[in-house]
Order: sequence, then C-alpha cells, then structure tokens
Amino acid sequence: MSVGEPSYQGDEALAGLLKKSGAAADLRQIRGLLAGVIAAPEGERPDDWIGLVAPTADEATRAQLRALKRQLANTRKPASLAPGAPRLAALRKEMEKGGVAGFLVPRSDEHQGEYVPPRAERLAWLTGFTGSAGMAIVLADKAAVFVDGRYTLQVRAQTDTSLFEPQHSTEQPPENWIIANLPKGGKLGYDPWLHTTTQLKHLRKAVMQAGGELLALPDNPLDAAWPDQPPAPIAPAIALDIRFAGRNSQDKRESLGKSLATDGIAAAVLASPDSIAWLLNIRGADVPRTPFALGFAVLHQDAAVELFMDRRKFTPGLETHLGNQVAVNPPERFAAALDRLGHAKARVLIDPQTAPSWAFDRLKAAGAELVERDDPCLLPKARKNDVELAGTRAAHRRDGLAVTRFLNWISHEAPQGKVDELTAVRRLAEFRRSGEFFRDFSFDTISGAGSNGAIVHYRSSDATNRPLTEGELYLVDSGAQYFDGTTDITRTVAIGKPTAETKDRFTRVLKGHIALGMARFPRGTTGSALDALARYALWQTGLDYDHGTGHGVGSFLSVHEGPHRISKAPNRVALEPGMIVSNEPGYYKTGAYGIRIENLVTVIEDPRPGDERPMLAFETLTLAPIDRNLIDKKLLTADEIAWLDTYHARVRAALLPKADTETAAFLEEATKPI
Amino acid sequence: MSVGEPSYQGDEALAGLLKKSGAAADLRQIRGLLAGVIAAPEGERPDDWIGLVAPTADEATRAQLRALKRQLANTRKPASLAPGAPRLAALRKEMEKGGVAGFLVPRSDEHQGEYVPPRAERLAWLTGFTGSAGMAIVLADKAAVFVDGRYTLQVRAQTDTSLFEPQHSTEQPPENWIIANLPKGGKLGYDPWLHTTTQLKHLRKAVMQAGGELLALPDNPLDAAWPDQPPAPIAPAIALDIRFAGRNSQDKRESLGKSLATDGIAAAVLASPDSIAWLLNIRGADVPRTPFALGFAVLHQDAAVELFMDRRKFTPGLETHLGNQVAVNPPERFAAALDRLGHAKARVLIDPQTAPSWAFDRLKAAGAELVERDDPCLLPKARKNDVELAGTRAAHRRDGLAVTRFLNWISHEAPQGKVDELTAVRRLAEFRRSGEFFRDFSFDTISGAGSNGAIVHYRSSDATNRPLTEGELYLVDSGAQYFDGTTDITRTVAIGKPTAETKDRFTRVLKGHIALGMARFPRGTTGSALDALARYALWQTGLDYDHGTGHGVGSFLSVHEGPHRISKAPNRVALEPGMIVSNEPGYYKTGAYGIRIENLVTVIEDPRPGDERPMLAFETLTLAPIDRNLIDKKLLTADEIAWLDTYHARVRAALLPKADTETAAFLEEATKPI
Repeated sequence: MSVGEPSYQGDEALAGLLKKSGAAADLRQIRGLLAGVIAAPEGERPDDWIGLVAPTADEATRAQLRALKRQLANTRKPASLAPGAPRLAALRKEMEKGGVAGFLVPRSDEHQGEYVPPRAERLAWLTGFTGSAGMAIVLADKAAVFVDGRYTLQVRAQTDTSLFEPQHSTEQPPENWIIANLPKGGKLGYDPWLHTTTQLKHLRKAVMQAGGELLALPDNPLDAAWPDQPPAPIAPAIALDIRFAGRNSQDKRESLGKSLATDGIAAAVLASPDSIAWLLNIRGADVPRTPFALGFAVLHQDAAVELFMDRRKFTPGLETHLGNQVAVNPPERFAAALDRLGHAKARVLIDPQTAPSWAFDRLKAAGAELVERDDPCLLPKARKNDVELAGTRAAHRRDGLAVTRFLNWISHEAPQGKVDELTAVRRLAEFRRSGEFFRDFSFDTISGAGSNGAIVHYRSSDATNRPLTEGELYLVDSGAQYFDGTTDITRTVAIGKPTAETKDRFTRVLKGHIALGMARFPRGTTGSALDALARYALWQTGLDYDHGTGHGVGSFLSVHEGPHRISKAPNRVALEPGMIVSNEPGYYKTGAYGIRIENLVTVIEDPRPGDERPMLAFETLTLAPIDRNLIDKKLLTADEIAWLDTYHARVRAALLPKADTETAAFLEEATKPI
Repeated sequence: MSVGEPSYQGDEALAGLLKKSGAAADLRQIRGLLAGVIAAPEGERPDDWIGLVAPTADEATRAQLRALKRQLANTRKPASLAPGAPRLAALRKEMEKGGVAGFLVPRSDEHQGEYVPPRAERLAWLTGFTGSAGMAIVLADKAAVFVDGRYTLQVRAQTDTSLFEPQHSTEQPPENWIIANLPKGGKLGYDPWLHTTTQLKHLRKAVMQAGGELLALPDNPLDAAWPDQPPAPIAPAIALDIRFAGRNSQDKRESLGKSLATDGIAAAVLASPDSIAWLLNIRGADVPRTPFALGFAVLHQDAAVELFMDRRKFTPGLETHLGNQVAVNPPERFAAALDRLGHAKARVLIDPQTAPSWAFDRLKAAGAELVERDDPCLLPKARKNDVELAGTRAAHRRDGLAVTRFLNWISHEAPQGKVDELTAVRRLAEFRRSGEFFRDFSFDTISGAGSNGAIVHYRSSDATNRPLTEGELYLVDSGAQYFDGTTDITRTVAIGKPTAETKDRFTRVLKGHIALGMARFPRGTTGSALDALARYALWQTGLDYDHGTGHGVGSFLSVHEGPHRISKAPNRVALEPGMIVSNEPGYYKTGAYGIRIENLVTVIEDPRPGDERPMLAFETLTLAPIDRNLIDKKLLTADEIAWLDTYHARVRAALLPKADTETAAFLEEATKPI
C-alpha cells in the first residue's frame, strides 16, 4: 500500500477492468470475499488474494482491486459497542436470554490453534486482554479472567479489573473460582466448538462440585453480543509442490487409511489444520505466521477424504491437485458428515486433545462408536521425510546467512548506538525477505535489549523499545517460513565488552546446549529424559530457566508442533529419526538481561562401531555463529570446545560460498576456533 | 539348630517345663502357632517366636520348644499331590466345580508384596516357576505362564512346557493370549484378593474383546486343590522404639487423620503392610528380608485405627505400645469393617495400585463412596525424619565397615583362587552379623563372578557357583536390615589386573554414578528427569543398561519402596528432602562380566550463596571404597576426580576409627586420591 496508489474508481470501472481481464466481475461476490480477506492476516504477501478473483488481471485491474480492499478496510465502522462495561453488559443480556448463569470465554478457536483469526478473538473483544492464552468466566454479577504466569502484568494493563478479577490460572485455577462462585443450580454455558473434551473434564468436575451444570450452548451468546464480529478469514490456499512435500497425498492417505482398517476403524476426524495441510499437501494463510488453511476433514479407511473448507480460498488448480478422492464441502456440511458416520454405527477415531467437544457430542448422539486416540497424522507429520529434511537443510542455509548478515550488521552498528530493538527487527526482516522461497516469518521476532531480554515472551513495541547499548546483552529469537522449511533461531550477543557474570551465565547455557546437542541416546528415549542435560550446568550453580528446552517444528508448518518435545513435563513420545526439535536452554535475570541459545536439530540414526544398541543423535540444522565473546573457555571441557569449533567450521563452510565480502570477513572471524 | 540339640521329649515333659517357666502350657495352641511359625521365614533370628509363647522360659524349656518345632517341620507330610500334571488336573477339577472356563494364578499375595509367604506361592506350586513375578492362565484344555525378560530362561528350566506355554509378558502379554484363547462366552475366574483394580482393568478389556466374562470368585479354586497349602505365617511383631522411628504413631495418625478430614474423607483403607508398619511403628517378620507383619488396616479421620492382624503374632507389650486408639481385630473381621463404612455411606480413600480389588468391590457393594488416591502413608513414609536419617547414617557406617572388611578379605583371598561366589556370600554375611542392631539381610545377596555378574538378577547356587578368578570382575550387591536403617550397596572389583575394556566400561559407569551423585536440582524435579545423567557417558559410546537407576529405600522396611524412583519410566513424584534412593548405574556384557556401582543417597536441601532457586542435592549414605584399580583416570574430568577423592576421604574418616589394623591398612590404600 504505497502512498502513490490510485484511489478506488467505483464498481462500474472495476467491473469493466475485470471483464477485460477475463475475470468474473460479480462485485457483490468480490465484496463478500474481501470481508474474509480483511479478516485474514496481511502477512508478507498482501496481494495474493487477487489470484482468487482475477488470476489473469493486468496491473491496472490489480491496482483497482487493491484500492477496493483499502476502501473496505478503512470504512469498516468503528466498534458498535465500546470496550469494557457495554460489551460485558451485552454478553450478560444474551446469557440471560439463553438461560445460563455463566459463560466461558476461552482464547481459542475451533482448532485449538496457537494463532487464531480475528473472528475468534472473543476474549480480547470482551476483556481487552490480547495474550495468546487465557479464559474469562462471566457470571451475572461478577467475572474473572484467568491467565498464566507470562501474562499477569499484561492482563492488569489491558483489562478493567473492576469488571474482571484477574487470576493466575495455575495458582488459582478456574475450577476453584467456579466452586466458590457459581450459584447452586446455576448453568454454566460454553461454546462446544471452542473446548476439547479433555479441557472440559476438569471444569465439569468443578461445576458439579458447585452443584451446578455445565451446558453446551448451540449458539455462542458472545457472538450474538458482538454485532461487528469479523467473518471467517479467507486467504489463498495453495498446493504444496511435491518437491517440497516429498510424498504425495494419495500415498499418505492410503497409508493412514490402511492403519485405520487394520484397527477396525472406519474413519478419523481431523480437527487440526496442520494435520489437514500435511495430509493433503496444501498450505494457506488464514492465521498469522502459520501457513495453513482453517478447516475440518474426515479421513476414511479407503483413503478418501471429506474436506470441509470454504472453496473461495482455493487458488486455481488446487481442486485438481486434491484429486477426485478428496470431496470438498462447505464447512456447514461437517455436521451432516458426522451424522452419517453415526447412523452407520461406524467406529470413528477422534483426538480428545484437539477435536472440539462439539464433534464428540455430535458423533455420539448420531450413534457412532468413538475411538479416542491421537490424531493419526501427528507422528507421520513429525517424522520428516528425506525431501523435507533436504528442504529444511537448504532453508537453514539461507536463514543462517540472513541471520549472519544481521549479526554482522549489529556488530558494526550497535556499538555506535545506532540500533534499537525495532530497527533491528526491521533489518533482520529485510535480510530474510531476500532469501529464495521466503514466504513469511514463523512468529513475531523477539528482539530484547538489556533487561527486555529477560522477558521470555517479549514483543518489542514503541512503548518498550530500548536501544542496543554498549555493555549490555541483546537477545534475538526469530524465524521464517520458507516453502522448503520452517526456521527458528535464537542468538544472544554482547554489545561491547561483556561482564564476567554474563560470560559465566552464557557459558553455562552453552554447556547445556552442547550437552544436548552432542547427546547420543538409544531408540525409545523421550525428550523428557533428555531435558536435564540442558540444565545441569545451570543447576550446579543454583540457576534454571522456566520454559521447556525444545519444541517440535513443522515442515513449512507450525513452528510449535507436537507430539514430541524436550521438557521437564513428562512426555511418553519417543524421539524418532526425522523429527525436528529445538535445543534452546536459557537464563534470565529479571531487570538485567536474558540469554538463550537456540538451534533447531533433527533426530538421526547414528550407528558407530562398537555400539551395542541402535543409537540416535541430533544433527544441528541451524547455521549461524554463537557469540565467542561471551564464552568463558575455562568452563568448557575439551569435548565441549571440540563440539563448538566443529559446529563453527560447519557454519563457515556452509555459509561462506554465498556470503558477500563484508559478511564473509565477519564469518571468518566469528567462527574461528576458540 | 546345632547338632548337639536334644530331641523332643514329649508333650507332657514340655507342658511341665512351660508351667515351671510361668507360661501357658496349652500344647494344642502351641502346635497351631507353630504351623504358622513354620510357614514364616526362619531368617536370622529363628528362635524369636519362643517369645510369643513363653517369654520367660529357661534354656531347658526353650530347647524343648525348638525341638518340638523341628519335629513338626520335619514330619510335615510330603506333598500330597505330585508337581506338574496332577496339580494342574486338580485345579481344573475345582474350576469345573466353580463353573469357570479359566482361572488366573498370579505370583502375588493379598498385599502385592515383592516377597510373599509360602502360602501365597501358588504359582510355584502349580507350575514350578519360582521367580518373583509372573502369572499363569489356566483354561480347560491349555495353559500359559507369563514372565518378564528376567525369567524367560528360568521358566523353561522349572516348568513343564507341555503343560504351560511359556510367554514373554511384555512381548506377548496375557491380554493377547486371552483374546486368542478364551472361548466365547467363557468365564475367566480370578481371586479378587490377589489383584488390584488397576491390574484387572486391562485384563477385563481383553476378556470382553474375547466375548467372555471376568469373574471374581469368592473361593480360590487353587487353594481348594492344594490340600497341604501352608497356613498364614506367624512371626513375632514388635514395637519399633521411638529412638529408631523418630516420630510416635499418634502424631503420624493425627496428622494423616487431619488431612483426611480436610478432604472430607472419613477413612482410608491401608493394604500395604509397610504403610501399616510405618504408621503404627511396628515391625514383623512374616515374609523374608522385609521386616513387616502382614495385615490390613483402616485409618479413620479421628486418628483411630482398626488393625486386622493375627494377635498371636504380638510380642508382649505390643498391645500397650499400640495404645487404645488402635483396635486390634482378627483378619476375618476386615470385611465387616468395610461393610460398616459402606452402610454409613462414608467417603473412603483407597489406593487402586495396592488395595485388592476385593476391598473395592466390598466397599462399593456396601454403599461407600470411593476416593481413589495414593495410599496416604506413601509420601510421609518416604520423607525420612531426622531421627531416621541419623539412624540410617549410623547403619551405613556399620554396614560400610562390614563391606570394607569383606573387600579386604576378597583382595587377599580371591587372587589365590580361594573364593567362590557362595563362600563370598557367607563371609560377607558374617561380617554383617557382627554389627550392632543387625536384624536380617535386606535381600538375598547377588554374588556374581565373571560372566555371572552379567545376569542382573543373579542368585548363586551350587549349580551356577563360580570361583572368583584372576583377570575377571566380581560384582556383589547386598544389604542388611538394621533396627536403625536398611542398606543396599553394590561394588564391582577386579580380581587381579583388569583389561582396558573393563576399565573403560567401569569408568563410564562411575561417570554416570558421579554425575547423578553430584547433581544439584531445583525443588520439583522428578527422578525421571535425572535418570539420563547416569547413562550419558555410556550412551556416548553406544552402551546402556536395562534397569532403573534408582529405587526408593525404606527405614528398617522394604529395600524397594515408592513412590519416587530414578528411571526412564515417567514418574510424576518429585524428589523431596529426606527421601532415600539408590544410585546404581551399571553395564553388563552377556557371557563376560557385569559392572554396577551402587550407593544409597538421601535428598537434602542444598542452599548455597548465589542460588536463585531452592536447590536440592544428594547426600551419599553408603560408605565403602570404589575399586580404584578399575578407573581409567583419563576419562574423568577434574570435577569427577574431586568428587571421587572427596567421597573416599569421607569413607576413610568414617570407617577408620572402628577398623581393625588389617582393615585400616586396606582402607588407607583403597581410599587414596586417584
């Protein structure tokens, strides 16, 4: 949207242009589509939607389509209800109409995603709180909002606490509040699309203990109270080329279908958009930073799929890509499909961790036999195939070069006081955008200078922006979505000369990173079993960090992907060859600095002479220098030094051929043996 | 029972002697009691039972009582049914009478103990298999016996495989066999006293899938088929002095009672004899190696206890020790007590992991509301109090001295070819017996020379006995029960000069032992999280061991005690100060040698300057040298060398004051810095 763009010339003019371009010129349809487009993130490719209405349009037509979108976006009416009390009152009115004493407002959509579309930002609309997790409970005369430890300050800053009691969700869980506050005999309503059965289990217990009733509502009273709630998002859904996916959809569907048949299961309900994206080799842009299209699907044991998705998202050719074993239906037909399964008394697999409880209830009511099991796509999606692995290696070379160029830039500019957190974010984005296959960032960059680095989920803003300052640390956690892979990397660098304390802490974090990075472990080992390796050096001196050590990562999909992870929390999923996981120990000193060293790694088979067990190990994917200025070499063992020097030699060898002269000089220096 | 003991002089003579001693002289009662005494282990104190009938008896009377016992033990009729086919046939006849198509014969008693009394050795009686875990399933025309990986060879050696198909219980679980073999509509019977509800859950699913029915039988058909089944054991139950227990029973009962009241629970069923022993500060000798008395109990929220135990076990004064808040009832009144709870519609805590399913069924049928939760004694029992910790430290000093004397003896005798596994066991036992407060061994010593050391659960016998041979390793895992503590220690020593390979392996095991031993970790850390620390050095070279790294240990109680442990298997119980746990990594090369280094440690608070978290650590309790000849110093880091030298200095300082000259010389040499 540059300043020089023409303004909108009117429907008639646009209709004419469209016709000339050979496109359908139904302006009503286009306006409908644009409502959805505006409700989807703009992302890095704000004009891709034009391909949905006029793929062959010339530049003049495209300019008018962009102008129409601008006009519609700008003329959206201001919120018809002021935030705070009026919205709460409107909700309570709808609750009263519905005959419920209370209502649950979680921060989640129908797919339990980490990112949700604007339409699902109900919690933010109601309370003002914009964190990525939380829930409000609204009763007739009081209300509370529950957030975890990350958000206790933010919720107080964003929410009118005279309307919503802020609560720490682990110290004072919703269950306790319900027991204390729900009136006896009171019905606590919920929207069954927005909760899993697993989530409801504990709530139901509490409601029963309060002598009340937990009640699924067919219509969400908050949606009724929200007159200008955005529609569902519409962003282009595309086919993912086999040169990136590595395995065609038919093959995936047949293999899973066979497994279902072996277990006597007729069909599986797929509620996770990333499972559907993986299974059908499609990608989308309905939510920020995660390239999938929202929808539901049913996979049958004969490998056929019923996909429930707004067809207006489909880019030309997608239908052909899906083939005739994939039936595309509008989302509202999902209910009827579940009913058919029920009427056939079919055994249906459904994942209680991800499927909306609505789907459970519907299937049960219709007579299906439910088999509660993990989403069958989870494991095969996590075990990347050779093409995906080759892709992620290539993506990491490009991403590593971008990060290295950025680190070089920082090393020159920051000591002169020319860089702050936000300029750094923009510069890093520029370096990444120039890479082949770049599509988007994989999450909003965490760019923390000095004390801001100690805030684990920090997002810089004008209000919090700090300059990168001599004598301080700078932490940058960022990643990108490329067609051939998803990246996620954290580097911490010293601006100027670091202190003995920060070197000690950085070196201990590095020791943990290396201990995990060079671990060999027998098949069957879980991430939970390995977590302590990354903490041991910190523990020995009484320190720790309050986040997991590693999360799974998708292949041009979610940057947080299960089912495996490396963390203190017990997890029964063994690490398997091809799984990608982050290795990111850290240390945070509140008010002073934050340290995190994050590489992505993939699990590999690692047979060596003399082994008595089938051993696995990690291959490091991420390629960028680790700040040598922050290392206290005395704290490292010979094995650790060898690991670091070998890693840096790999980084150098991989990046040098593509590096410009200035970056090459930096790289040579930054990857020297310590 | 020395050779010179007089023979039995007849009832009349004994009656006379008893009267003179001021004891009751009812010979029928004495014979009844002796049947139970003979059905209990003799252990290390075979005459203690005399205190139950004639505590004030003079030596002549005691000699006649011993003679009577010998006579009764020796004149027990030979088995009335030959092993093998006749016993199986007798069981099947009883099954037919009971109208069941099949019957489960687990190797367990009513308390799910690791050691069971002879009466509960039903699996051994039926199949000949004497391992510590397993189950037979008997159908009308076929039968199978399921054992785990430890016992696959042993079961084939002991069992007639034409009668019982041997099965690997994890590779071919009973559930699969049931599905494949139980006739449709067939009733599979079980004795509800011998299974927990947790165990039955999976079996029930399988039986349903086979189209059959799992049926609790009021009378065990095997017991009916076993005419000479021993009675329940009778061994003296004693009070544990407060100077060993550290906390009186009333205090424990009141504290647990208060917790029950807070949770609105009327009473808790206690099915674990070690929970009862801890709660009431009593000890017994009903099963080998574990000093508890078998029984059940109900703890009420007012701190009162109903104890269901054969009063004939009580040593004089025990009743007074228990006090008037503990009502002692014969075991057969347990049912009525549960019925009373049911009729009162009481909320009753019961542990599905330890309580017999019989108790569940009984409580439910009577109308109780069941609260399924861990046995409330588990955690407080695991967190040893200061007196128990002081006791275990003292016990470990005595035990360490005995082991060190033994290691010295080995170092002199073994290279001359004078020692074999069995003579070693006997010599070690002698050293231990001379220690103050010695009561029993805590398990049967594992004494493995050369290749026998590679068998993790090895028990030496005349058939397998090997000499300790120059150039080989010798592994000895042993422990004792002292009034003030339970010990468990493994040492591996080189006889003569070790090879480079055994030194490499030993040093890697030692690195694991040290990594765990010197770990500091934040409060809330579980043993599962720490397990990999003990394996890392082995993993790096492709090796591992197939057992857990650490088990909890009781205070003059079970040498294997929950709820905490250190193992690959997920465990949600955090390590807490006062818990005792073993640290015992190992390495086993089949057919060649075994290595294990085991110390007991206790969890301590470990605050140090600069700590940002409340940190815990391990204090090593076990005090005995680790074989310096087996260490390849080049493989150790400076920190590891410091740990070992410091440990050895502690061992020397603790044991030297009590060591004889010869042992002192050995100790000085064996604990020198490496």
